[in-house]
Amino acid sequence: MRIDAVDFFYASMPEITLDADGSQDALLVRVRSGNDEGWGECEASPVTSIAAFVTPRSHGVCRPIADSVLGQRLDSVSDIARITALVRRNSMDLLQAAHTFSGIEIALWDLLGRRFGEPVWRLLGGRRAYPKVPYASMLFGADAQATLEAVREAVAAGFQAVKVGWGSFGQGSVEADAEQLAAAREGLGPDGLLLVDAGQIWVDDVASAAARLPALQQSGATWIEEPFLPLAYRAHAELAAHNSSVGIAGGEGAHSAHMATNLIDYAAVRFVQIDTGRIGGIGPAKAVADYAAARDIAFVNHTFTSQLALSASLQPFAALADHRICEFPFAPSELARAITSDQLEIVDGELQPLDAPGLGLRVDLEAIRPYLHQVEILVDGRPLYADHHLGGTPVGNSEP
Amino acid sequence: MRIDAVDFFYASMPEITLDADGSQDALLVRVRSGNDEGWGECEASPVTSIAAFVTPRSHGVCRPIADSVLGQRLDSVSDIARITALVRRNSMDLLQAAHTFSGIEIALWDLLGRRFGEPVWRLLGGRRAYPKVPYASMLFGADAQATLEAVREAVAAGFQAVKVGWGSFGQGSVEADAEQLAAAREGLGPDGLLLVDAGQIWVDDVASAAARLPALQQSGATWIEEPFLPLAYRAHAELAAHNSSVGIAGGEGAHSAHMATNLIDYAAVRFVQIDTGRIGGIGPAKAVADYAAARDIAFVNHTFTSQLALSASLQPFAALADHRICEFPFAPSELARAITSDQLEIVDGELQPLDAPGLGLRVDLEAIRPYLHQVEILVDGRPLYADHHLGGTPVGNSEP
Repeated sequence: MRIDAVDFFYASMPEITLDADGSQDALLVRVRSGNDEGWGECEASPVTSIAAFVTPRSHGVCRPIADSVLGQRLDSVSDIARITALVRRNSMDLLQAAHTFSGIEIALWDLLGRRFGEPVWRLLGGRRAYPKVPYASMLFGADAQATLEAVREAVAAGFQAVKVGWGSFGQGSVEADAEQLAAAREGLGPDGLLLVDAGQIWVDDVASAAARLPALQQSGATWIEEPFLPLAYRAHAELAAHNSSVGIAGGEGAHSAHMATNLIDYAAVRFVQIDTGRIGGIGPAKAVADYAAARDIAFVNHTFTSQLALSASLQPFAALADHRICEFPFAPSELARAITSDQLEIVDGELQPLDAPGLGLRVDLEAIRPYLHQVEILVDGRPLYADHHLGGTPVGNSEP
Repeated sequence: MRIDAVDFFYASMPEITLDADGSQDALLVRVRSGNDEGWGECEASPVTSIAAFVTPRSHGVCRPIADSVLGQRLDSVSDIARITALVRRNSMDLLQAAHTFSGIEIALWDLLGRRFGEPVWRLLGGRRAYPKVPYASMLFGADAQATLEAVREAVAAGFQAVKVGWGSFGQGSVEADAEQLAAAREGLGPDGLLLVDAGQIWVDDVASAAARLPALQQSGATWIEEPFLPLAYRAHAELAAHNSSVGIAGGEGAHSAHMATNLIDYAAVRFVQIDTGRIGGIGPAKAVADYAAARDIAFVNHTFTSQLALSASLQPFAALADHRICEFPFAPSELARAITSDQLEIVDGELQPLDAPGLGLRVDLEAIRPYLHQVEILVDGRPLYADHHLGGTPVGNSEP
């Protein structure tokens, strides 16, 4: 069977704020092959990612993603690795390629899972899927009191683990950060798992990060996430050399498996966090999970968007019993909630990866229709892309 | 003075082949501030890079490049670093950002250089510019004889150094590669500098790369360039551990200064090759040049396109007397030759960085007009971008 069509669905909330809330828009991908279809999601800039699919060729290794996907054979999981290698080679100089291909690759797994009647984690070689401990991911409140209340809400909703991040953390005084951390711990209670996300705020300034270690340690934080730019390995390693009880976490920015395993090898992260919607899909994420597991580094998903993205990001470590922590989008946008008609349920504080074909969820196209946008890209008046699947001009991406 | 306008010019040859010849298209950037203008070039996928400039915001740190550039103050070189930090923060999750911003950042330097009447290398703190030894960069011929003839042409044109790469190198037998290398050395003569570019062909397979080391050494190659994926540091370090006389070169894929300095710290490269049109512009390239110089690693430009790109890529190491090797596009496309009305001249086998305001070259808009394309990007029928500077719809990027 061949890949017959790749269609993108760009949806957004009516207004996009400047909050670091990645669920405000979405780029869904539908792949069709014969009578089967699969869905994926790019955690990426939608219009830029669509452009990378259709952009005119620049030279032999700067080709649009479409060139390496449309018309390709898709009979077994080994075809996914083959197509991945094609994209890597043919789009070597197209920086956005990994973000665009991530959603496609996820959709290929979903499609094959549905065709074969197996969950993706089983296609990846897993025997069973183990429950995870989901943490509620949220932004710091405007002040310590707001953070306290937000964390209490998550606890009331049944979470035993909470991650707070962004907001003004790391930008003001060490004392202000300490107050925020104390409030988060107070809201969580003494036994809950507290995780903290710095959002790259210290760039590569080790001293500013190290100044927060005592407060992080006092609040019993398990990790400090993304203290620095994702490629500033030396800064990470220097912070790790403080031997704090607080581990360094990172990896959401990884757009290749090597970029993530380098964080383990050179940046001393204890937790590697992978978004399948950015790293190039489920295959590279699985490679990172195996690499991490062999080195006693915890693999964690990164997910701040929909349940579809959550299910995709669980697949690479669903079968790893000892890798328990799992990010769960606690308060996603209306749009993100509308994307799938079913949801992963938290039972007794645990999240069980689905044992159903593919990613195990149905995309509800009718529910997201009010949020959809039509994208057109033209060169010399000739449309390279138009969402004819949304009722637009009958030209574009489905015809290679 | 504010940044009033950023305009993109996408030009290409009438036909784009699958050769690894990056000069087949170009994305030029013109920045205007008051009465001044400056020009830069992205070494990147044109339509994708334009999309990253105008794409609708996804969230606080996934914003279009335009948000961090248009309307910004531009009075001194410190403003360039400030704008760079803004882009890095506001477009953290927009993968294509570095490629798009590279051309803009180069144009900002060119603009300030013209405004102040100084070459960019002097704005960077250089006292004088030193001559470089340009190497003719070419693809391997279809067979050894073709390579021999091509190298002879470069020698006849006055080059003392030649780089051959890509083609079928590394994909066939070790013997076939050895023949190609011997032919290149024969064409070059015993004293010329021979450089070899593997174009990432071995991915992360150290054994396949190591199998070519004897032939590389026998042909007296100075470096083997990009044997592996640019983030596969461990493979690089393992190849370097063979202690061959042939050094490892790499870095053209770097889209941040850290990505390049990591090649020095963890991948044991002896030559770090930076394209200012990809790494984020001249500022990050200068940071890499200083880092390399302090560690006795040779800094080399990567340039396979126009003279404008060449002049930009020379600036970061123009003042470093000991860093002598310089890539020179030997046989660029008609389009690439048309971009500037003046050229850098090779005299007695040496190339002197220009001592003229900005990048020292004039873009010839009339000459490239036959190659220009009009790009339009629309969301819900609303144009986000239209090249009104080319005579298109009077809407788009110049009005923030």
